[in-house]
This record gives sequence, structure tokens and C-alpha cells, in this order.
Amino acid sequence: MSTSDTLWANSGDSHFMEPPDFWNVILPKPLADRMPRSVKDFDTGVETIYVDGQEFQRTLPRVMVKKTEEGKTMMELESAAPGLGDVDLRFEDLDTEGIWAEAIYPSLGLWENMITDRALVRAACQAESEYRKITIQDRAPDRFVPAAAIPMLDINDAVAGIHHAADLGLHLAALPTGVSEGMPDYNRDDWEPLWAAAEETGMVLGFHIGTDGLGRKDNVMYNGPGGAVLNYVGTTYGGQWVALKLVTSGALERHPDLKILISEGGATWVPFIGDRMNEGYRQHSMWVRPILQHLPKETLYRQVYTSFQHDEAAPAALWAMGYQNVMWGSDYPHIEGTYGHTQKTLHGLFDDLDPVVSRRIRLGAFEELFPHTARPSVP
Amino acid sequence: MSTSDTLWANSGDSHFMEPPDFWNVILPKPLADRMPRSVKDFDTGVETIYVDGQEFQRTLPRVMVKKTEEGKTMMELESAAPGLGDVDLRFEDLDTEGIWAEAIYPSLGLWENMITDRALVRAACQAESEYRKITIQDRAPDRFVPAAAIPMLDINDAVAGIHHAADLGLHLAALPTGVSEGMPDYNRDDWEPLWAAAEETGMVLGFHIGTDGLGRKDNVMYNGPGGAVLNYVGTTYGGQWVALKLVTSGALERHPDLKILISEGGATWVPFIGDRMNEGYRQHSMWVRPILQHLPKETLYRQVYTSFQHDEAAPAALWAMGYQNVMWGSDYPHIEGTYGHTQKTLHGLFDDLDPVVSRRIRLGAFEELFPHTARPSVP
Repeated sequence: MSTSDTLWANSGDSHFMEPPDFWNVILPKPLADRMPRSVKDFDTGVETIYVDGQEFQRTLPRVMVKKTEEGKTMMELESAAPGLGDVDLRFEDLDTEGIWAEAIYPSLGLWENMITDRALVRAACQAESEYRKITIQDRAPDRFVPAAAIPMLDINDAVAGIHHAADLGLHLAALPTGVSEGMPDYNRDDWEPLWAAAEETGMVLGFHIGTDGLGRKDNVMYNGPGGAVLNYVGTTYGGQWVALKLVTSGALERHPDLKILISEGGATWVPFIGDRMNEGYRQHSMWVRPILQHLPKETLYRQVYTSFQHDEAAPAALWAMGYQNVMWGSDYPHIEGTYGHTQKTLHGLFDDLDPVVSRRIRLGAFEELFPHTARPSVP
Repeated sequence: MSTSDTLWANSGDSHFMEPPDFWNVILPKPLADRMPRSVKDFDTGVETIYVDGQEFQRTLPRVMVKKTEEGKTMMELESAAPGLGDVDLRFEDLDTEGIWAEAIYPSLGLWENMITDRALVRAACQAESEYRKITIQDRAPDRFVPAAAIPMLDINDAVAGIHHAADLGLHLAALPTGVSEGMPDYNRDDWEPLWAAAEETGMVLGFHIGTDGLGRKDNVMYNGPGGAVLNYVGTTYGGQWVALKLVTSGALERHPDLKILISEGGATWVPFIGDRMNEGYRQHSMWVRPILQHLPKETLYRQVYTSFQHDEAAPAALWAMGYQNVMWGSDYPHIEGTYGHTQKTLHGLFDDLDPVVSRRIRLGAFEELFPHTARPSVP
């Protein structure tokens, strides 16, 4: 506990860094050897990726290669938080920042989705979930909510992954914002067993933005003036599409107890797409399928939770636009997040707000998803 | 004028239907014959397009072919407004709906951008602009603000188009949300002369959503459950990208008197992308180019105007999130708009609002773009 003017918050978006030899820690050697490994050469700007016997290279995005005035890459900056991969040190970081509980996503690279062997993915996800349960959650079940890994190459595998995670006692499962190559999109009824399994087990489905997958046709990268900011904003839209698909397809309505969390993508977009969906649904009603019991915005407001870091407009999405599931997130320890200035950010966002609104965004919305983390003593 | 409880509004998004033989009305026959012509067969669901000596067919999108219970297609529904293509009748429609002045976009098909002959496009755009000045604007210069057509196959041509429109006395120029095949994207400095010309002539640049162009890689169409609503929401993002590009590239900042209008895409997204741009700009500052004098959100709030039809959250973007350039739009006479229920919509949106906020959204933001339409007697 720090000083009395600490404004405590739960984080709907935090990260943990796996140890460098992660696959060997959690998998038998024959499997570990086949898992993706990335070797980045920041001097040549070339990344070599090894996956399941294959090897290929790519030019690292400029944002990853470029160094600050102090000669640090983005990765080095992001690895600076002592608690990133060390649970003992993490407690200190959290207490200093004023963060109580966290939804914790992995730091595993983009390359996992290049494995096409279902059995290998199943084994890896199972081991990952078990690792996170033991290494992270068990150390402080009322503070750490690590996300289960779910094998997404097959819907039955995904369903089994949800049940395995629930049996372990995990509360959150991470799904990518984009489906794997060749899989039906999230608006398709094929996924019905997955939504049912999550609802039945009370598993929150967490979609972290920026996980749309590689080489997808709706993934555009910008170059030239403004490119860094354009690409930054661009990462957010994948999360919006997940919410759009799960609402308009009726998936959320068919599973009223299913709750999803879109992490790091901001919150102010929710009233916006709610109104747009309602307009499309009403004005194009003769072409809309399926017919829904509730207007899309109602379901969106009820079952979709979203986290933001700095967005000054986000609290007004709650008090002025009626969207209750606005949740704060630190994005610890990424440079897009608040690590190092969390209290400044929280005070800036919340000091002038109605205390009820402030508490709901800082703590309440998170506690609704993960009631076991609730701590009545925190204001 | 109608009854005293009419809530008057200007519309930042209206449409006019050109006569069926439009190209022959405005162009010499040898040129008219080369312009695009679309013949839609709603029974077979096939559209045949004739452009500049070529002919090709496509399957009509289901939303265009499907008929209502009364046996009407979307096109038939949308052509029902008497004033769509008839200025005399349009006055009656506007007075009945309670709409004073309008930004008026054309109804020309998607196929115009398939012409690749610069001279032909120049001639057509020039004739279109002249037609709209004489046939629409001159009939009621304080009510009708039709958009000039701008040839976009070449930047010098586009600049000349802006000057021609200004010389004619037009106040608004329509640009597509997506550039033509092979042209640099809007964040590129190549477009600098166009922004300068618009600023210099006081020409408002109007980007109507849904004009991203055909076959672009970031244009995704959804099928299956929820598809109609997903595609409806999807059309909105092209407008957001225009604003993002013109802000992050520094184009708007370099031209502080340039104002752009994003029509039909809603307004509530503006605070959202403002905050996201600021976060990216600040947190990724070491990679951002160009360095800007003002935070992106400031420029966005100052120079980007946006229109919405029904969105119940949109007014709060102004009074709770500080975005002053929220503008209402009828989308007359499209079925996404308010034709036939405009007064119901306006009363629903504005009756409980602060009158200053209400007036700003209904009339004031539009009057700021087009001061010559201001009518002090309208409350």
C-alpha cells in the first residue's frame, strides 16, 4: 500500500513476459523444438523465425528497429518493468502504480498462429494455461487473472480448451481478434459451441487488440507521413469488428451470460458502433438476418466490456452515453500504457468525476467480470 | 414554413438524383457515349456496366436485389421522395421535413472511377459542377449547397477542379474517401497543392462515406449472419481514415483554414480517434513523423466536421466530450436517413438538450462551414 492519495484501479489489460526458454519449460523437448522462435537482429533489421522445421526471414517493422536518443529499441523500453516476467517483483510494481487486480495477457509473439498442426497447438495451449495458473494466478488469485491459451485451429479443440481452462480454475481466455486462416469468421454459427462453452463455464473471453493475424486482407499498414500514428489507431479496429460480429450474428444474445472483454482498444467507440448498428438494423430491417430480440446496442452495452488507458473522453461514454462497461487498463508494461505514470493518469482522468462513475471505471466493471478479485476496502 | 413546433435543421448530408440521360444533358455526344452507364436487371440480379467502350457484368449485391414485402427494391424505396431529382418539388419536401439548407451530394454510380482517361474525367467533372451550380445552387443559393465534382486521376487536375468550382461560386467539393487506383494516399505530401487550393478558395472538402472505391484491399464485405449490419457499419470507417490521414500527416495543421466534412459517417467516433491519435502520438513520439505543432485531437476537433442521422449518443460528443463540430444530416432521401420521419428524429434527439447545444448541432456547425446559408430568424 502506498500513500493515502493513491487512486487504486484494476487493469483490464496487462501483460506478462514468458521466460526466454518458455517452450522448454512447459513442453517436452520434441514438442518444444517445433514451437516458434524468433531471433531479431536490430542492427540488420532482420528477424528470423523458426517454426516447426521451417525457417524464414522478414524485415522488422521500422517501429521495432528504430532507437530512442538513449539508444533503446521499443522492446528494450518495454522490458524495463521489473515485474514483467517476475511475479515477486510484479507485486512491487503494482503497489507503486496503484493497480490492484489485472487481466493478464501473454507476450508470446505473433508467430504462434503459423503452426498448423492441431495436436501441437493443443499441447502448447494446454501447457500454457497450466503454466499461467500455477506461476501467475496461484501466487495471488485475488489480483492476477491470467488468460488461458485456446487452440483455435479447430472449434472442438477450442471448446475443449475452454473446459480445460475452467477445470484449472482460470477465469479469462484469450482469443485473437482475427480467426486463423481457413476458419469461419466469428459471425458464423460454426462457433456456437465455443460461445456456449464460455457461457456455461463463466469464462470471460478476452480479445486483445492487435491480434488480427498476419496477412489478412483487412490488415492495412501505412507508410509515409503520419504512418506510426495511423498504424497505432489501425490496431484498434479489429476489436470493434469482434464486438460487431458477436452482436449482429446474435451470438451474444443467444448467450446472455457470456461476457467479452476487448482489451486496449479504447471504450468510446462502443456508443458509436452501437448507434450505427441500430441505424443499420432498423433502416435496413428488410435485409437483416438474423432477427434479434433486442436492438444491437442493448446487447453491446450489456455484454461487451472494453479497456482504455489514457483516453480522456472514455469516462463520458459512461456518464453521458450510458455505456456502463467502460474499464480502465494499464497495458503494463508497454509504452502505449501508463507504467511509470499510472497515478498521474488516474488522477487526471478521475479526480473531477462523480465518485460512483470513477469507482465503476477503475474497479467496478472489472469486479463484475471477476467478482473473486473484489476488495470491499478499496474506495 | 410549417407549424410552430417544427424543429429546423440544416443537413450536412443530402442527395440529388441526376436525370436518366444525364451525360447527354451535360456533355457533347462523343464524350457522353463514353461515360459509365449501368443497366440493372433485378430479376436476374445482374448489372451490366458500360464504360468507355468496355462492357462488363457483375452480380448485384443481395441488398440491392432483395425486395420488401411490398415488392420494392432499395433503389425504388430511395427514389420515392418527389424532390430527389426535381428542385421545385424538393422545396416542398424540405419544408415538410423541416430542413433549411443542405450539403448536396450527387447520386452518380460507383462506376465513374473506372474511367482512366484524364481528359474525359476533367470534362465530365467540369460539366457536372456547372450543372449543379445552375440547376441546383442558383435556384436557392441560401438553401442548396451542391458539391462540385473534382477530377481525381491527377493532382493538378484536382487543383484546377477546385479553382473552377470556386470560380463558379460553389462552396463544397466532393472528394472520395479512397483515392483512385495508383494515386498516392491522402497522407502523402503529393496532395499538398489540393489542400492549399481548397484553403485558399475557402472550398469545404466533403467526403461522403462509402466512396472508398472498388476492389481496395481494405474494403471487406461480410456475408452470413449479421452481414447486412456489418457491411452497414463497415462503410463508416473510410471516413475515419480520411480524417486520420489528414490530421496525422500534418495536412490540416499546415492549412488551418481548411475545413473538411465527413458526411453520413456519424460523429461520435471523433473524440474516440482523437484520443487514440493523441495516445499514439505521445507514447510513440520517438517514431512519429512529422512532428506536429498541436496534438492531433486539437486539429481534428477544429477542422473536421461530421454528420450523423439518428445516433442518439452523437450530441454528447459535443456537450460531454467537447467536440463542437457535430452536425446533423438527413441523408435525404436514402433509407438510412430520416426522410418521412425527420421531425420525429429531431425532436427525439434535441428536445431535452440545452438549446445552445441543440442549435449548434442542427444549424450552427453547418452555418460555420457555409455562412451564406445562415438565417438569423431560425431558432
